Amino acid sequence: MKISRPRGTRDFLPEDTRRRRNVENILRNVVRNWGFSEIITPTFEKLDLFTLKSGEGIVGELYNFTDKGDREMTLRPELTAPVMRMYVNEMQANQRPLKLFYFENCFRYERPQKGRFREFWQFGVELIGSNKPDADAEVIALASEMLSAVGIKGSLHVNHLGVIRNLLSILEPEHQSKIMRLVDKKDDTGLVDYLEDIDAPGHLRLELMELISLTGDEAIERARQIVGDIPELDEYQELLDLLDAYGVEYIIDFGIARGLDYYTGMVFEIYAEGLGAQNQVCGGGSYQLIKLFGGGDVPSTGFGLGFDRIMEVCEIEPDDEKPVVIIAKDSTRLEAVKVATRLREHMPVYVDLMKRNFKAQFSYANNIGAHHVVIIGENEVEAGKVTLKDMDSGEQELLELEEVIQRIGN
Amino acid sequence: MKISRPRGTRDFLPEDTRRRRNVENILRNVVRNWGFSEIITPTFEKLDLFTLKSGEGIVGELYNFTDKGDREMTLRPELTAPVMRMYVNEMQANQRPLKLFYFENCFRYERPQKGRFREFWQFGVELIGSNKPDADAEVIALASEMLSAVGIKGSLHVNHLGVIRNLLSILEPEHQSKIMRLVDKKDDTGLVDYLEDIDAPGHLRLELMELISLTGDEAIERARQIVGDIPELDEYQELLDLLDAYGVEYIIDFGIARGLDYYTGMVFEIYAEGLGAQNQVCGGGSYQLIKLFGGGDVPSTGFGLGFDRIMEVCEIEPDDEKPVVIIAKDSTRLEAVKVATRLREHMPVYVDLMKRNFKAQFSYANNIGAHHVVIIGENEVEAGKVTLKDMDSGEQELLELEEVIQRIGN
Repeated sequence: MKISRPRGTRDFLPEDTRRRRNVENILRNVVRNWGFSEIITPTFEKLDLFTLKSGEGIVGELYNFTDKGDREMTLRPELTAPVMRMYVNEMQANQRPLKLFYFENCFRYERPQKGRFREFWQFGVELIGSNKPDADAEVIALASEMLSAVGIKGSLHVNHLGVIRNLLSILEPEHQSKIMRLVDKKDDTGLVDYLEDIDAPGHLRLELMELISLTGDEAIERARQIVGDIPELDEYQELLDLLDAYGVEYIIDFGIARGLDYYTGMVFEIYAEGLGAQNQVCGGGSYQLIKLFGGGDVPSTGFGLGFDRIMEVCEIEPDDEKPVVIIAKDSTRLEAVKVATRLREHMPVYVDLMKRNFKAQFSYANNIGAHHVVIIGENEVEAGKVTLKDMDSGEQELLELEEVIQRIGN
Repeated sequence: MKISRPRGTRDFLPEDTRRRRNVENILRNVVRNWGFSEIITPTFEKLDLFTLKSGEGIVGELYNFTDKGDREMTLRPELTAPVMRMYVNEMQANQRPLKLFYFENCFRYERPQKGRFREFWQFGVELIGSNKPDADAEVIALASEMLSAVGIKGSLHVNHLGVIRNLLSILEPEHQSKIMRLVDKKDDTGLVDYLEDIDAPGHLRLELMELISLTGDEAIERARQIVGDIPELDEYQELLDLLDAYGVEYIIDFGIARGLDYYTGMVFEIYAEGLGAQNQVCGGGSYQLIKLFGGGDVPSTGFGLGFDRIMEVCEIEPDDEKPVVIIAKDSTRLEAVKVATRLREHMPVYVDLMKRNFKAQFSYANNIGAHHVVIIGENEVEAGKVTLKDMDSGEQELLELEEVIQRIGN
């Protein structure tokens, strides 16, 4: 019986996997050098963890299930909630700021479409314990550096929600939340209607619509004219000065809202070139979730990178394997095994496992793209040497094993 | 609300994770040099895949669930079935033998206990397309080499099921299967009772009980006296000769059975020192599953390593991070960020993100175990240099940034 893989999931063949591991390692080296430490959390969590963070509405898009002990569980849809849970349970006594990162798979039950999968990978960081612009600037600069490291050009849009929140502070909290979601969706018509519905003051409607349309270099100055000299704008400016020092290119964009109540100040999104409509490869901001999960009043900031979209646009190739094939006769088979074991300390080595004849072994070497073969016939065994053959030039030479290692070993 | 992680799962803190990644990379480098290629399959699969392989009985220990499209799914309990499914769907046209490996998490709903978790990791290889002793010997030698690479001493027990199958061939297939399971469990009393129940011939009972007790260097000779000069014993001997050539230490053990019908010939298990009763870290053998999943009659051989048990006994340490902390004043903060960006190309660098004063920044550097700090005060900025301080010796020196990189960069 032939069984297919579940819809919306993927198998990664050897070349795909090698390429993914390459990119993963490049990204991991970058975040480590920025002083972030990797953590691993369980693939499934209690369902509560995500409904508490995102509301009951999220259940419709989760891979949730009841386990054999009758507990409500779910495959994780994202990693921020698990990291916060872990922090509250196990890391509250640690030196702050804590700088954590993860590279893990997540799951969403949604209609599979181009670039969206039911099992997908996220590379993210969470910086816990600082609400200073320095922390926000560091995570933005890191996200930018990670994308550069894998050759992705993107446009980075940054905002500080404190400004719009200050403007909306005269409204009911639930109205504020709804407005933030409409801004996030860029649903201007819906927003105008909603402001009408809640009978928002006329000046606020005008100011809001202008504020969220502000982008570019003059935007902070214009915002000052709209909302006045508020401290949030100074903090915003401080963040931008730090980003300049990091050499990060950004676009000020008062229309970036992220739409969720737990974002507290800085928010940002990065859109990559070459991805069409679904081009957001990174999103993040400063947030407060630790209190919600029973911890202290600890500020955090972080982001998630969509690894699958990164793989779609980045130009990193799988590393070249340079395999070496050992070719032996039936009578020198055991000798071949000994040579293979020694060479494998230095390079990828294949020996015949099919009892193929000499010629068929050569054609196998050709088929897998071996640049070199090491021939072990009876003459070689007698001489205590091996013949190294360059498959491109056709040249061959009788050598000591150590010489082979020196010539073609890594 | 404080939420705990699901029972039987783990959070891996930074040091644990670094250590796991270290071991993972060591193992990955070994298997790559043996010419195996990594693949990745989905975390959940259709339930059928595993019931087809292992029978309906396995459902009781699975994390199975019905998805929102009413399909029966399960978190994977092991990787051999998914790799075989992938082979049948996507790799049948590939050059053989195919040499694949995986490092992935698996899930079993069982009572959590020491060294057994509901989410656990497996490092495994599957060699597809050869039924020759050469292929079997290669996977055994590889397993042995992987354990050596991470400093684990184990005892490797090897067997060839063809011998016992030959002896049992006069019995009904279902009786043979049941006997293999009893042999696997080392349930001698149960086995004697069962042979009685099925009214097995007297000579067979005696021969079987003696055969499965055979271990050590003389075992092949004794087996020849019991079952005669059968070709399976020649194949067994050929396997052992190859293992000798690889330099693998093994114990011949006719009592190793693996208990499942799809094992066809060679089987082996490795038990590690230092793990108590649950000390099996590796198990494998040659098997035939591809036909069951709708593919051709293609032989395979492979093994799985229990990564969590390996982590328990291996002595690999997390790699030393050697963090460097940049210490700045409020007035030199932007300069510090520029220096950090440059140094991060060569080492892990921390800058202050809490607006701490000079002294508090030093104490942070001490707390995270920094061997060096880079001080950027006003004098340094003016001189266009930085002060490098060795935190162990207390010595400090005004240097060009390039000199710092030369002295302490990786």
